[in-house]
Amino acid sequence: MKILFIGDVAGSPGRDMLQAYLPKLKEKYRPNLIIVNGENAAAGKGITQKIYKQFQQWGAHVITMGNHTWDKKEIFEFIDDAKNMIRPANFPEGTPGKGITFVNINGTEAAVINAQGRTFLPAIDDPFKKLDELIEIAKKRTNIIFVDFHAEATSEKQAMGWYLDGKVSAVAGTHTHTQTADERILPNGTAYITDVGMTGPYDAILGMDKEAVMKKFLTSLPVRFEIDKDGRNQLNGMVVTVNEKSGKASTIERIMINDDHPFDS
Amino acid sequence: MKILFIGDVAGSPGRDMLQAYLPKLKEKYRPNLIIVNGENAAAGKGITQKIYKQFQQWGAHVITMGNHTWDKKEIFEFIDDAKNMIRPANFPEGTPGKGITFVNINGTEAAVINAQGRTFLPAIDDPFKKLDELIEIAKKRTNIIFVDFHAEATSEKQAMGWYLDGKVSAVAGTHTHTQTADERILPNGTAYITDVGMTGPYDAILGMDKEAVMKKFLTSLPVRFEIDKDGRNQLNGMVVTVNEKSGKASTIERIMINDDHPFDS
Amino acid sequence: MKILFIGDVAGSPGRDMLQAYLPKLKEKYRPNLIIVNGENAAAGKGITQKIYKQFQQWGAHVITMGNHTWDKKEIFEFIDDAKNMIRPANFPEGTPGKGITFVNINGTEAAVINAQGRTFLPAIDDPFKKLDELIEIAKKRTNIIFVDFHAEATSEKQAMGWYLDGKVSAVAGTHTHTQTADERILPNGTAYITDVGMTGPYDAILGMDKEAVMKKFLTSLPVRFEIDKDGRNQLNGMVVTVNEKSGKASTIERIMINDDHPFDS
Amino acid sequence: MKILFIGDVAGSPGRDMLQAYLPKLKEKYRPNLIIVNGENAAAGKGITQKIYKQFQQWGAHVITMGNHTWDKKEIFEFIDDAKNMIRPANFPEGTPGKGITFVNINGTEAAVINAQGRTFLPAIDDPFKKLDELIEIAKKRTNIIFVDFHAEATSEKQAMGWYLDGKVSAVAGTHTHTQTADERILPNGTAYITDVGMTGPYDAILGMDKEAVMKKFLTSLPVRFEIDKDGRNQLNGMVVTVNEKSGKASTIERIMINDDHPFDS
Ligand SMILES: [Fe+2]
Ligand SMILES: [Fe+2]
Ligand SMILES: [Fe+2]
Ligand SMILES: [Fe+2]
Ligand SMILES: [Fe+2]
Ligand SMILES: [Fe+2]
Ligand SMILES: [Fe+2]
Ligand SMILES: [Fe+2]
Repeated sequence: MKILFIGDVAGSPGRDMLQAYLPKLKEKYRPNLIIVNGENAAAGKGITQKIYKQFQQWGAHVITMGNHTWDKKEIFEFIDDAKNMIRPANFPEGTPGKGITFVNINGTEAAVINAQGRTFLPAIDDPFKKLDELIEIAKKRTNIIFVDFHAEATSEKQAMGWYLDGKVSAVAGTHTHTQTADERILPNGTAYITDVGMTGPYDAILGMDKEAVMKKFLTSLPVRFEIDKDGRNQLNGMVVTVNEKSGKASTIERIMINDDHPFDS
Repeated sequence: MKILFIGDVAGSPGRDMLQAYLPKLKEKYRPNLIIVNGENAAAGKGITQKIYKQFQQWGAHVITMGNHTWDKKEIFEFIDDAKNMIRPANFPEGTPGKGITFVNINGTEAAVINAQGRTFLPAIDDPFKKLDELIEIAKKRTNIIFVDFHAEATSEKQAMGWYLDGKVSAVAGTHTHTQTADERILPNGTAYITDVGMTGPYDAILGMDKEAVMKKFLTSLPVRFEIDKDGRNQLNGMVVTVNEKSGKASTIERIMINDDHPFDS
Repeated sequence: MKILFIGDVAGSPGRDMLQAYLPKLKEKYRPNLIIVNGENAAAGKGITQKIYKQFQQWGAHVITMGNHTWDKKEIFEFIDDAKNMIRPANFPEGTPGKGITFVNINGTEAAVINAQGRTFLPAIDDPFKKLDELIEIAKKRTNIIFVDFHAEATSEKQAMGWYLDGKVSAVAGTHTHTQTADERILPNGTAYITDVGMTGPYDAILGMDKEAVMKKFLTSLPVRFEIDKDGRNQLNGMVVTVNEKSGKASTIERIMINDDHPFDS
Repeated sequence: MKILFIGDVAGSPGRDMLQAYLPKLKEKYRPNLIIVNGENAAAGKGITQKIYKQFQQWGAHVITMGNHTWDKKEIFEFIDDAKNMIRPANFPEGTPGKGITFVNINGTEAAVINAQGRTFLPAIDDPFKKLDELIEIAKKRTNIIFVDFHAEATSEKQAMGWYLDGKVSAVAGTHTHTQTADERILPNGTAYITDVGMTGPYDAILGMDKEAVMKKFLTSLPVRFEIDKDGRNQLNGMVVTVNEKSGKASTIERIMINDDHPFDS
């Protein structure tokens, strides 16, 4: 089974890239399962129901989120009915939405889990403990388990990778909006990458207008961050190959599409 | 001119890799200037005078540091005489050592600057302002300016890259110990990468014994972090090509040597 | 000389308390200099020109600010002309406004300085170094120097108190909105208190509606914090007595007015 | 019932003050229950078994801890047998020790709970949720419940006070080592204070040698913090009166003993 994962789609530039390249990526990789992180899909902050539906129409089976989950107020109205959307599972008990979902792919089930780190991020429930719980639940149905671990610190992400090595098919980091080059298959068969990167503006800072971000660092004055729309765009993601029975990963390949790395069909 | 930069050398596994591969990298790339980040060279924490000298014997022209600069007490005794060692320039005025140095390569001068970020790191002086000052000084002597920006947040590092685009030859991030895949030549001729990664243990977490780091995340109990010595090792770095007159970069290439990416001469 | 200092005035409840009690405090203490922290005066976030003028009409000679300085956009239009308003002096060079002001009281000059800490707060310029600079400037005109040190950590505030002991008349902490009981005259004649507290809602959390703050801690969901207007109010401040020649403080007295500590004329 | 609570005892100066004044405080207040925060009792960092026993010999019924619980390694050897010692209850499941204890005072039971905040402190389990659980357990045995909430942020501490108002007898903050002046009986009968302060060095910064702390802030260089032993000492604490049946508090009184506030028998 092939799983295609697309990193944080940021604003309309990100959505445009997703719409433009998803058909080509499908043709190239023939993925059975497509997962898209959508926490920045609506103008960089959160997601709307319209976008959630679009992503599915374009082929996404699951939309994952992160610390920006609640940025658009309307999410509270549709998240509980959004079967294919997951938010970090270790948000406190009672939080709307869910952190795990199952997808049926021609009779084969796959579990997708979203969790969030706590280093340099708000104090929520323990992601390690929560993943233990959810993996136990998932294992009753399938060995194919994909984890989007949304976190800032490289230490916490690598710790999660090693902690889950052999228990899940893949641990893919998101949130830093910067693709890392450390993709690998860990010794016990888990595909790992610290961060898959971001899909959206390429001549920008994490997708945001670079003048604004620089002004913030230079002046410490309040600045309004907006998705950059003046420059070129990029798409970041990865593909993993997973054994349907064992759930073990055999390959992991980074995807980076931009003017410096044109798409190669 | 070719500049070879090696990411945070961690403990004896990192030093062994440096010693083993520097001759091969020299042969392959024929670098004119070799820079090595040594903030973790001594058992993961700081550097000793002996190691500082070794690195130079092996070919390093400049050793850069970071937040671990002072971890080994003996540094206070030799840093002021260590002509080829620089520590973050934006440490407070009066701090021992210096943040910029000049290297003469067959009559051509190059400036190397070390600075440290402030996001998720201690509050020190403004790195953007300090770099403005130092670049002005450097420009009087040379256009070839290499910056090791030691920082945690991808936003701050990318902001620095864009801020210095066209003013320096290269901005190379360090500190996260995880190589990023976003190396590029920015529009005005500055080579940029968010993080070049780490040189040392490969089956570890940022170079440290992974059992200990996982225990920390799982229990919150005090844990002693030590360089992992049981697994395989890696070397991370990059090479940039810089025009000697203009100081502009024309190429940037990541270097990653480990069992998954064997050295290719 | 007597200096009356009123802690962070929060929203209309805070303004009402100030207006109601300032006449009584004037009568009781006969202060020569009145300083009011106004960073939360406009609905808890920032200050408007109208409020800035009101505070002066009611008797304030100087209005100090803090991390909420820029919350109300209109401040950028009047701060450069607001002779009696100061914002933290260690904001980066080029920031609108100023961090020190002088007040002439019947021929005697007094300097008032505002600075901000960096622990658990954004990384700005070094407050210790900036205060050294400003105190040198102030000393040429007067020995009466009052410092509002807006900071979170008790360690940083006490460090500032001891650092400035003997150099200024008073170091009064603000920002935590909670009055401390550690007011004292330090050995070299500087009046010190870690925090003078807040003026505004009494049945609230730092002046904000307590249900909202509790919801934030319990759910981690986004919550809109608003000034509590349903409960009782309080006023927090202090009075110091300063020798006009030497600038040394001889007394420091906390002021706390609320239903548990009714005003005692 | 009267409960005497003594704030973080720091090093030998703190222990000396405790030993010297506990007899006088007993005579003055006739407390039925004595609780001492001991997280800094051993040279400022953690506690030893010897000190734990001393505190009980001097009259303490319960010793509470905080973020410094594990600083002295030997605690791992005796904490599980230390019936009268509690550490923050919201440390992760599986942590040695316990977070609640019961004391029998002439046939009347009282519960004492220790919890730790998460703002500006490590990410551990949710203290609000954990307190809900423990209070439910405690209520089956007694209405007299005393909470030492060890936390940094005034917002989190006040949120806890209001959250537990009416459910426990007292919420007493510790950790900032600076006594606040906001003690009060909340509307539903819970005694509250943001921080009771520290017992130990008076001419110091949070009990530590002030030269070292100032050096840290001024230079950012590594500094060894040690308990100040050159100056005068202080004792900080409070006394609450609690109805034995209802568990409601009727009075709360701060205790501050130092050269500026001599003990008044
Ligand atoms: Fe994102
Ligand atoms: Fe994120
Ligand atoms: Fe490092
Ligand atoms: Fe570092
Ligand atoms: Fe405030
Ligand atoms: Fe503030
Ligand atoms: Fe403490
Ligand atoms: Fe503490």
